[in-house]
Amino acid sequence: MDFSSKLLEEAVDEMSQLPGIGKRTALRLVLHLLKQPEGQTLNLVSALTKLRSEIKLCKKCFNISDTELCDICANPAREASLVCIVEDIRDVMAIENTGQYRGQYHVLGGKISPIDGIGPSQLNIQPLVDKVKKGEIKEIIFALSSTMEGDTTNFYIFRQLEGTGVKTSTIARGISVGDELEYADEVTLGRSIANRVPFENSLKA
Amino acid sequence: MDFSSKLLEEAVDEMSQLPGIGKRTALRLVLHLLKQPEGQTLNLVSALTKLRSEIKLCKKCFNISDTELCDICANPAREASLVCIVEDIRDVMAIENTGQYRGQYHVLGGKISPIDGIGPSQLNIQPLVDKVKKGEIKEIIFALSSTMEGDTTNFYIFRQLEGTGVKTSTIARGISVGDELEYADEVTLGRSIANRVPFENSLKA
Repeated sequence: MDFSSKLLEEAVDEMSQLPGIGKRTALRLVLHLLKQPEGQTLNLVSALTKLRSEIKLCKKCFNISDTELCDICANPAREASLVCIVEDIRDVMAIENTGQYRGQYHVLGGKISPIDGIGPSQLNIQPLVDKVKKGEIKEIIFALSSTMEGDTTNFYIFRQLEGTGVKTSTIARGISVGDELEYADEVTLGRSIANRVPFENSLKA
Repeated sequence: MDFSSKLLEEAVDEMSQLPGIGKRTALRLVLHLLKQPEGQTLNLVSALTKLRSEIKLCKKCFNISDTELCDICANPAREASLVCIVEDIRDVMAIENTGQYRGQYHVLGGKISPIDGIGPSQLNIQPLVDKVKKGEIKEIIFALSSTMEGDTTNFYIFRQLEGTGVKTSTIARGISVGDELEYADEVTLGRSIANRVPFENSLKA
């Protein structure tokens, strides 16, 4: 693209560094900002600057937080002995939205993925192992996505925790509530049969 | 969405003000920025700030420019008596990319659209009429999109220019080069027949 303005070109270049934003979309976004009152750009800029400079990770669960200890870890009503292992804050938000989970979280910050150069040492795995060894945790729930990377990470952590006596479980995989069996994929359907639950349990939810 | 961090929430809120960016996409973009080195956020922020505070509109054609007079208007090789009327800088870039146009532009900054509260006075129409009345322009090419708003704007400008003796034309509408007739819409095909050109002309392009 041939811009008539260096300033415009730089803004478009930076905007198009964001994932899923190509040059054309970036140009549309930047031109939109130029058409809006200056305040909108200033608000965006200040929110991003503040976020980048002031954001913290909770020292206990590594979730994104404004404080040393996040709201969930600081809440005495949450069971500290039950910890759900997730990839990032989006998973925390998804589980919180169900309103069904009363334990705490441990945010790994990613999954083991040799292709992307992410090994166990880049993730928050050691702090989790330390917490378990201190005996603070009774049960761990694995809630990573069921991809190869997710399974690898689950298994790596599971091996690290061997001998600690902590109880481990993984969230149930099965047919979505309301889904038709005929459209379900075989792996999911197979797992939902293998991991069938007593009928009485299904009456509770 | 329920965020664990006010800073994160504000950044997502501001990001989701951009057109076509919902809350979920905004969260993905903001989390991406958090994972990248701080420099990327700082570069984006400084590019946007500089753009918003330093950008100018060319005083002659109202195109976005870093200087008082844009490169096209300042270029003595471009015919100043031929002016193409476009909506915004994206149209200028599209026409420039063809490498076929040697005249100058006049950027309106939008189209007349009563629904969006945009009337003729919010667009750069009067400066165009003034330029024409000063006798600087011999021919005007209308290149707005062929929507109702585009046609209205064309017609409004056309009426404003009545009596000035300036020649007006509009870019040709027709079947795209390489397109099959059977898939063309009726309006376009109809126009391409009504506005047929001498066969010799088609040999030049």
